[in-house]
Amino acid sequence: MTLTAPSQTFRTARRVEFSDTDAAGIAHFTAFFRYMEQAEHELLRSVGLSVFMQVVGQEITWPRVSSKCDFRSMAKFEEVLEIAVNISRLGEKSITWSFRFTIGPREVASGEITAVCCRVAPDSSLTSTPIPPLFLAKLRPFLTPVP
Amino acid sequence: MTLTAPSQTFRTARRVEFSDTDAAGIAHFTAFFRYMEQAEHELLRSVGLSVFMQVVGQEITWPRVSSKCDFRSMAKFEEVLEIAVNISRLGEKSITWSFRFTIGPREVASGEITAVCCRVAPDSSLTSTPIPPLFLAKLRPFLTPVP
Amino acid sequence: MTLTAPSQTFRTARRVEFSDTDAAGIAHFTAFFRYMEQAEHELLRSVGLSVFMQVVGQEITWPRVSSKCDFRSMAKFEEVLEIAVNISRLGEKSITWSFRFTIGPREVASGEITAVCCRVAPDSSLTSTPIPPLFLAKLRPFLTPVP
Amino acid sequence: MTLTAPSQTFRTARRVEFSDTDAAGIAHFTAFFRYMEQAEHELLRSVGLSVFMQVVGQEITWPRVSSKCDFRSMAKFEEVLEIAVNISRLGEKSITWSFRFTIGPREVASGEITAVCCRVAPDSSLTSTPIPPLFLAKLRPFLTPVP
Repeated sequence: MTLTAPSQTFRTARRVEFSDTDAAGIAHFTAFFRYMEQAEHELLRSVGLSVFMQVVGQEITWPRVSSKCDFRSMAKFEEVLEIAVNISRLGEKSITWSFRFTIGPREVASGEITAVCCRVAPDSSLTSTPIPPLFLAKLRPFLTPVP
Repeated sequence: MTLTAPSQTFRTARRVEFSDTDAAGIAHFTAFFRYMEQAEHELLRSVGLSVFMQVVGQEITWPRVSSKCDFRSMAKFEEVLEIAVNISRLGEKSITWSFRFTIGPREVASGEITAVCCRVAPDSSLTSTPIPPLFLAKLRPFLTPVP
Repeated sequence: MTLTAPSQTFRTARRVEFSDTDAAGIAHFTAFFRYMEQAEHELLRSVGLSVFMQVVGQEITWPRVSSKCDFRSMAKFEEVLEIAVNISRLGEKSITWSFRFTIGPREVASGEITAVCCRVAPDSSLTSTPIPPLFLAKLRPFLTPVP
Repeated sequence: MTLTAPSQTFRTARRVEFSDTDAAGIAHFTAFFRYMEQAEHELLRSVGLSVFMQVVGQEITWPRVSSKCDFRSMAKFEEVLEIAVNISRLGEKSITWSFRFTIGPREVASGEITAVCCRVAPDSSLTSTPIPPLFLAKLRPFLTPVP
């Protein structure tokens, strides 16, 4: 018998700023990709990690290999988006973050960012590398079990 | 026997501006979503259309319902991205634009934007509507036949 | 004898997000102009106002006529900027907001935005207009007496 | 008798992109600061320089110490801004770039960026340094004589 803890959801919020809006009067679709990344970084900070950090003397970073977002309804200036963050896939070398944006009961958008764990060489070149155990331990609670 | 004209590709280019870069020294991933939209609008202008326009006395616009991008390699400050634009799906009420970014022979990214044709009501509310014949006629040449 | 209340300072904070940074590894200078506007809007909300609002049946808004910023030191990814907001000039039809950015004891930047009070006509055109008494009453406490 | 060549003006243009607009339907004021920087970098490229470059084995860069912009009229989506660039001050260690934005005969905005010439140390720290003769020679033609 396997007992698994229910997955944890990280929750944050972000107000639509005037500079995020466009001439259609709503948050420009590219703003959601910024919001997703900001929520990812906030989750990392909440568990003592950073998207740029030294792990066992090695600089680790997470270039994005893919991102997508589906838009269901519009978000206007000064509305506050609630953002729920989970991890939908935790691979050996990559993470897929998933994000759900709501305003009260209204669905606004949902999206994903897939990032690959990389070591930064002294010449700034990147090589993919297994996710360090420190990251795995702190991020696994946010993994959503696939139904 | 059906004779179909080979599909047309719209080509443009865009230099990575300093404000597009991030602390990792490369174009931030969100910049590609802006580049995609700018290339879409440039294609529309090239055939005499606009993303906001009056068609038969009716204001038409194209809210985004979905967008995604896959990143293969990095683009640095001042590099010039060549952008190839096609239409991968032309539905009754929606268009899926597809974009391929290269720097010389190097693949950099490829992505999509799906937009829905909408009428703008006097109170600014949007209702999806069939794509006007004017748009269909001018955009069909960019449709890529699915293999 | 004139008794004047000491001026009030509105304080907020903003973290340097990764999308705000540039290839020099610091917050891009244009990010400070966004931060200033966001702090202005936050101050307005804190006193029950908005940068777009109906006042006595009239839509009022505040186009910018001037903005400037001086940069003293750099702000890095994930640093938290403390922002102090005052009003350095409250004219009949315009406001000059002043902003001071610090990180702990370190001066980072200081800037200004001057905005003009305008009525929005039904055709969206703007006409400058005296600042409504409601705004004057709520904003006067933030006016810094000129030494 | 002194003979001075009339100063040279660098001219470029930039279309207002949809992502540059805001809910007021015009180019957001922060977009002009991006446009100014992009025009500065374009001028540098036009004379064979770059804002990041090796000069006599030394990495040189130009952090901004000040920027401002005055706004006279509005720029809408898809309008093309003509940008005239000059240098209003060429100091021993700093440059003040000046920019004038027009749409046909209409004045839209004018602004400045002041940048300081710095050497980049191996640890990425910056130290101000006299502008290299190579830069002076190539930039002096753009200096506007003060009347």
